[in-house]
Amino acid sequence: MSRPSGRQPDQLREVIITRRFTCHAEGSVLIEMGNTKVICTASVDNSVPPFLRGKGQGWVTAEYGMLPRSTGSRMSREAARGKQSGRTQEIQRLIGRSLRAAVDMNKLGENTIQIDCDVIQADGGTRTASITGAYIALADAIASMLKAGTIKENPIVQQIAAISVGVFEGTPVLDLDYPEDSKAETDMNVVMGSNGGFIEVQGTAEAAPFARTELNAMLDLAEKGIGELFEEQSKALTVEV
Amino acid sequence: MSRPSGRQPDQLREVIITRRFTCHAEGSVLIEMGNTKVICTASVDNSVPPFLRGKGQGWVTAEYGMLPRSTGSRMSREAARGKQSGRTQEIQRLIGRSLRAAVDMNKLGENTIQIDCDVIQADGGTRTASITGAYIALADAIASMLKAGTIKENPIVQQIAAISVGVFEGTPVLDLDYPEDSKAETDMNVVMGSNGGFIEVQGTAEAAPFARTELNAMLDLAEKGIGELFEEQSKALTVEV
Amino acid sequence: MSRPSGRQPDQLREVIITRRFTCHAEGSVLIEMGNTKVICTASVDNSVPPFLRGKGQGWVTAEYGMLPRSTGSRMSREAARGKQSGRTQEIQRLIGRSLRAAVDMNKLGENTIQIDCDVIQADGGTRTASITGAYIALADAIASMLKAGTIKENPIVQQIAAISVGVFEGTPVLDLDYPEDSKAETDMNVVMGSNGGFIEVQGTAEAAPFARTELNAMLDLAEKGIGELFEEQSKALTVEV
Amino acid sequence: MSRPSGRQPDQLREVIITRRFTCHAEGSVLIEMGNTKVICTASVDNSVPPFLRGKGQGWVTAEYGMLPRSTGSRMSREAARGKQSGRTQEIQRLIGRSLRAAVDMNKLGENTIQIDCDVIQADGGTRTASITGAYIALADAIASMLKAGTIKENPIVQQIAAISVGVFEGTPVLDLDYPEDSKAETDMNVVMGSNGGFIEVQGTAEAAPFARTELNAMLDLAEKGIGELFEEQSKALTVEV
Amino acid sequence: MSRPSGRQPDQLREVIITRRFTCHAEGSVLIEMGNTKVICTASVDNSVPPFLRGKGQGWVTAEYGMLPRSTGSRMSREAARGKQSGRTQEIQRLIGRSLRAAVDMNKLGENTIQIDCDVIQADGGTRTASITGAYIALADAIASMLKAGTIKENPIVQQIAAISVGVFEGTPVLDLDYPEDSKAETDMNVVMGSNGGFIEVQGTAEAAPFARTELNAMLDLAEKGIGELFEEQSKALTVEV
Amino acid sequence: MSRPSGRQPDQLREVIITRRFTCHAEGSVLIEMGNTKVICTASVDNSVPPFLRGKGQGWVTAEYGMLPRSTGSRMSREAARGKQSGRTQEIQRLIGRSLRAAVDMNKLGENTIQIDCDVIQADGGTRTASITGAYIALADAIASMLKAGTIKENPIVQQIAAISVGVFEGTPVLDLDYPEDSKAETDMNVVMGSNGGFIEVQGTAEAAPFARTELNAMLDLAEKGIGELFEEQSKALTVEV
Repeated sequence: MSRPSGRQPDQLREVIITRRFTCHAEGSVLIEMGNTKVICTASVDNSVPPFLRGKGQGWVTAEYGMLPRSTGSRMSREAARGKQSGRTQEIQRLIGRSLRAAVDMNKLGENTIQIDCDVIQADGGTRTASITGAYIALADAIASMLKAGTIKENPIVQQIAAISVGVFEGTPVLDLDYPEDSKAETDMNVVMGSNGGFIEVQGTAEAAPFARTELNAMLDLAEKGIGELFEEQSKALTVEV
Repeated sequence: MSRPSGRQPDQLREVIITRRFTCHAEGSVLIEMGNTKVICTASVDNSVPPFLRGKGQGWVTAEYGMLPRSTGSRMSREAARGKQSGRTQEIQRLIGRSLRAAVDMNKLGENTIQIDCDVIQADGGTRTASITGAYIALADAIASMLKAGTIKENPIVQQIAAISVGVFEGTPVLDLDYPEDSKAETDMNVVMGSNGGFIEVQGTAEAAPFARTELNAMLDLAEKGIGELFEEQSKALTVEV
Repeated sequence: MSRPSGRQPDQLREVIITRRFTCHAEGSVLIEMGNTKVICTASVDNSVPPFLRGKGQGWVTAEYGMLPRSTGSRMSREAARGKQSGRTQEIQRLIGRSLRAAVDMNKLGENTIQIDCDVIQADGGTRTASITGAYIALADAIASMLKAGTIKENPIVQQIAAISVGVFEGTPVLDLDYPEDSKAETDMNVVMGSNGGFIEVQGTAEAAPFARTELNAMLDLAEKGIGELFEEQSKALTVEV
Repeated sequence: MSRPSGRQPDQLREVIITRRFTCHAEGSVLIEMGNTKVICTASVDNSVPPFLRGKGQGWVTAEYGMLPRSTGSRMSREAARGKQSGRTQEIQRLIGRSLRAAVDMNKLGENTIQIDCDVIQADGGTRTASITGAYIALADAIASMLKAGTIKENPIVQQIAAISVGVFEGTPVLDLDYPEDSKAETDMNVVMGSNGGFIEVQGTAEAAPFARTELNAMLDLAEKGIGELFEEQSKALTVEV
Repeated sequence: MSRPSGRQPDQLREVIITRRFTCHAEGSVLIEMGNTKVICTASVDNSVPPFLRGKGQGWVTAEYGMLPRSTGSRMSREAARGKQSGRTQEIQRLIGRSLRAAVDMNKLGENTIQIDCDVIQADGGTRTASITGAYIALADAIASMLKAGTIKENPIVQQIAAISVGVFEGTPVLDLDYPEDSKAETDMNVVMGSNGGFIEVQGTAEAAPFARTELNAMLDLAEKGIGELFEEQSKALTVEV
Repeated sequence: MSRPSGRQPDQLREVIITRRFTCHAEGSVLIEMGNTKVICTASVDNSVPPFLRGKGQGWVTAEYGMLPRSTGSRMSREAARGKQSGRTQEIQRLIGRSLRAAVDMNKLGENTIQIDCDVIQADGGTRTASITGAYIALADAIASMLKAGTIKENPIVQQIAAISVGVFEGTPVLDLDYPEDSKAETDMNVVMGSNGGFIEVQGTAEAAPFARTELNAMLDLAEKGIGELFEEQSKALTVEV
C-alpha cells in the first residue's frame, strides 16, 4: 500500500496553527492540516442558555459550516437553502461535546463560549481539524476572560484534540486526506483529552465491516497522532501574540 | 454496583419482536426492549433517488421519530416545530447507514427500501432498538419483493443488530435503560453484522473520559448482546406470519 | 347497496379501547375502530398559553399526526418536509375544539391538557376515532390530576365522541371505512356531547351535492352511532387500570 | 333579541359586487357584504397540477389571505412569519372545494383556474363572501376562455354561493357580522349550488352545543340567504363590463 | 422618442389619493399613480421593538406585499411559498427607512407605527407609490394619536415622497410605467423630503451604464416630480375626512 | 474634520488582492481593504437556470455571507436561523447585478458563473469590497474556461469595481471604515465599469438628507477611488499565478 500523499501510515499531515487570525473574536485560529483549512473562533457571551440560568455554571457550544466552494464541486449554501444538513448538525454537536470536556463549567461561571468552525478549504478531516483548532481558540478566549477579570480561576482542565484514522487499501492509516477518505473501507474519528482517555470514538464501516484487531490498530494510530497534536497545540500556545 | 433494574451487567432486557404489527407496510415490526417500544416499518418504492438513477443499484434509507409523549415529559412535535432536531437527523442517518450493510445493492435493483422507526415509548436505547427491529422489517419487505417477483435473488448479505453499552457507576453494563443512560459516565452504541465485524462504534464520554480497557470491556459486552439479538431475530423470522 | 365490509348501513365497526397503552402520559389510549388505530395521549402541563395567563382558566389543545406508513402507500413525514399539511392542521384544530367542549375551563385552573393523536394504522375515520379516543385519555389525565390534588373538583362536564357518516352508492351509512370513504358521494363528520346537542357538523359534498333529506338521514345515523360510542367510553372508563 | 346592526334575523347585509375591479386578472371582483370587503380574482393557467396531467381534465384551486390591517387590531403578515396559519389553510381548502362544484372538469380541459381571495376589510363572514365573490370571478375567467377559444363549451354547471348563519343570543340569525360572530353560541358556514343541494355544511358550537331544531332553523335561514345571493350573482353577471 | 403612454418626458401619471380607504387602520390610503394602485395603512402600536425599549424613542417600520394577481401573470403567494423574496425585503426596508426620515422619534415616544403597503394592481413604480401613499397614512395615524392624547406634540418633521425616473430609448423620463420600466436602460428610484435634500437615491444600469449627465438629468426630473407629489399630498391632507 | 484612521478624505485604505487563495474554485480571491477581508470565489457550472435554457446565453449570479464572528459582536449564523436576512439578500442581488455588467452573456454560452463572497473580517465596505474582489475571481474563472476550451471567445467586456463614499462630520469622504460608517450622515455605494459610466448608485441619508452638491462631491470621490481600484485589479491580474 502506498498513500496517495506519499505519507507513512502513521504520519500526520503538516499542521500549521495561526492564532489571532481575525481581529474581532476573543479567540481566532486558522488551523491547517495539509490542505484542510478551518477558521475557528471562540466568542465570549456573558450569559448562559435558559436551561442553565441561575445555576452558576457556564456553557460551551459550537457551530460548523463550510464555505460553498471549500470543496471540489460547489455545495449549495446552507443559509440560502434555509437549513443546516444532518451532517452539519452532527458535526457541530460533536465539536460542542468535545470542547465541553476541556472546561470546568463551575469555574467558567455564567458565561458561554460560542465556538464557530468555518471550513474555507476542505481536503478530508474537517471535523477533527475543527476540534483541534477550536481548542486553541477556546484557550485564547479564556485567557482574555482571565485578563479582563471576568473569571478568576482558569477553568481549563485539559487539552482536547482529534484526528481521523481509517483502513485504506487494507492498511490502517492516520489522518486521512480526501482521496483516502473517499475510498476508505473504514473511517473513524477519535477525540481525546490530554489527561488521558477517550472523549469520542466514532467508527463507521464505509465499505466493509471492521474487526476488533483493525479497531485496535486504528486506536493506536489515533493515540500517537493526538499525542503529536497536543504538542503542536502546546507549542502554538506558548508563543506571545 | 447494582443496576436500577436488578439486571446483571451483561444482561439484555426482555426482547419482544412482533411482526406484521400494522397491515399496510411490506414489513412492519414492533420491537420491545423492556419498556422501549419502537414501530419499525419497511416500505418498498420501485424507484431510486436521483443520484442512483440508471446505475442498476438499489437504496436503503431511514427516518426516525418519537411520539411527543413517548417520553417522561412531553417533547414538542417536530412536524409542528417545522424541523427535525440534530439528534433526530443523527439517528436516522445512523439507522440508514447500518441497514445498508445488510443489503447487496446490485441484487436489490433500482428499488428503494424506506425504513421508518417511530418510538411510541422510550426507556433508553431507542436508536439501537430501531436498528435491530428495522432489520426484521427489512427482511419481511424483501421477502415480499421476492414473492412478488420484483427481484429474483435475495439481496440480504447478513443480519444487522445493535445495542448500547456504557459505564454505569464504574461498571461496564449492557443495554442501558433510561435511569442508567441518564447517569452513565460513558455511553456507546455498537452496530454489528452477523458475518462478523463492526458496522458502527459510537462512544461518548458523558461525564468522564474512558480508558482503552473500558472501551474493550464495553465492546465485549456489545458482542455478547448482539449475538443474542441475532438469535432473537432469527427466531422471529422463522415463524410463519 | 352492500357495504364492502358487509356491515349494515347503521352498524359501527368493532370498537376496542385500550387504556394505559403507553406508560409515560397521564392519559394514554389505543383506540381501534376496525382497522383504524390511533394512539391518543393526554399530557398535563401546569401552565397555560400566554393569552390565558392570570385568568384562572385552563386550556385543552390537540395535535395530530400519521405515521408515514399508516396508509396504503407511504406518505412523506411531515417533520422531514418541515411543515404540517393543511389537512393535519384542520384536523388538530377540530380535535382541540371538540375536546374543549368536555371541560369546564374554570375548574381546570391554570393547567393545559395537551392531546396528541397519532395514527398508526389508517382505514378511514381517523379524525373521529381520534376525538372518541382522546376523550378517554383526557378523562384519565384529569383523574390523575384529581388524585394528585392538582385540581380539587372534576372539570369534566360531558363525554365527547365523534363518528363519520356518508352517502355511499346512494345509501346513508355509518362509520365509513377507507373503501367507502374514497368513493362516497358525501362525507360528514359529526361530534356530539353526552349532554345532548352537536359540537361540530362538517359535511362535504364529494361527488354530488346532498339534499336536506340526506343530511337528516346522516344525522340520524350519527346520533345512533355516537350513542353507542358513549356507551363504549363509559364501559372502558369503569374498568380499573 | 335585537341585532347590533338593527337587521332582521333573516336579513342579509347589503351586497355590492364590482366586476373588473383590477385590470390584469381574467376575473376580478370586489365583493362587499356590509363592511366585509374581499378582492376575488380568477387566473387562468394553461396547465394542470402533476396528478392530473394527461387526463384531459381541468382543476380549480384557491388561496386566501387577509391584509394585515384588514382587522381591528393588526395581524402579523403571513408572508413575513413564513407560514400560513391553520385557519388560512382551512379556509382556502374550503373555497377550492366549493368552487370545484361549479365546474365540469372534463369540459375545462387541461387548464387550471387559480382563485385568490384577499380580504381588504373584515367584519365577519370573510370566507363565505370569498366563495360568493369568487364564483363571479370564475365565471368571468371562463367567459374569457370561451371568447379566446381556449375552451369550446361552457364548463359551468351551476352557481355557487355561501353564507354564515348562527345562533346569537338564542335566536338563529343570517349573515353574522363581527360583533355577532364574536359572541355567537353557534356559527355555521353553508355553501350551496344553484342546482339545489348542499356543497358544504360546517357548524361549530362556540359557546354551547346546538340542537337539531337549531340546526334546522339555521339551514332554513341559509337556504333563504343563499337564494338571494344567487340572484345578486345573476344580476351582476348580466351587466356588460 | 415617444412614451408608450403619450406622456411628456417630465409628466407624472394621474395621482389619486383616497384617505380612509379601509375602516380599521389609524391611517388608510389608496394611492393610484395611473394604473398602479397600492393600499397603504399605518397602524399604531403602543410599544417599541426590544432594541429601543426604555429609551423614550419611537419607531416606524414597514412591510410590503403584492396580491398574487396584481401583475400581468400571476405571481406565487409569498405566504404560501413560506418566505418573502429578496425583492420584497429590499422594498420594505426602503419604505421603512424613508418614512423614518419624516418623524422625530423622540417626539413619537415609545410607540411604533407599522406601515403596510399592499399592491392591488401593478403598472411600474409600486415602491415609490408606496412611499408617497404611506406618508399620508402615517400623517393620519399621527393625527389620530394627537387627537387621542397618546402623544402631545406633532413628531412629523417633513413630508416624504418618492418617484422613479429612468432613461427610456435614450431619453430621461419621469415616473415610468411598466412598459417603460421593463425596457429602460436605466432605472432610478428617488426619495426626497420636503425640507430639501435626498433621502434615498437608488440607480441601476439595467441595459447600459449611465453617465453623470444622465444621472443629473434624472435627478432634475425627480426633483420636479417629487415637488408635484408634495403638493398632491398637501392637498389630500387638507380635506376633512 | 479628521478621519479616525488619519486618512485623507479622498484616500483609499490599503488594498491587497491575493489570487488563488483557496485551491478548488476556478477563481478564488482574498481581497483586503484595510481590515475588511472577503473571500471571493467564482465557480463554473456548465448549465444555466431554467429561465435561460435553450437561449444560448450564460448567467452570473452571487451569494454573500458573513462568518458569525467577522464582526465586533457575534452575529447569529444565517444557516442556523434558517434564513438569510433582508440585508444579505439585498447585498447578494447587488453583487450579482454588478458583475453581470462585466460579461457578454452570449459569449459566455450556456454556462453559469456562481460568485460567493464570504466576509471573514468586517470593518465597513464589505459589499463594495466583495464586488471589487469578485471581479478578479470572475476573470480567473473565465480564463480557466478559455484555457479548457469551454468557451472560445473572452466574454469580459469591462472591469467592474465598487467603493463606498459618505459624508462624515460634514465632509465627503472615500472608502468608509466601520467607525466612520456607523456615524456617517450619508452613506453611498457606487459601482462603475471601466468603460465609463455608473452601474449602481445607492445613496442613503442615515442621519440627515443630502444635498445635490454633496451627492456630486461623493460621486467625484467615488470616480477617483474606483479609478484606483481598476488599476489595482489590472495589476493583480497581470501577475502569473
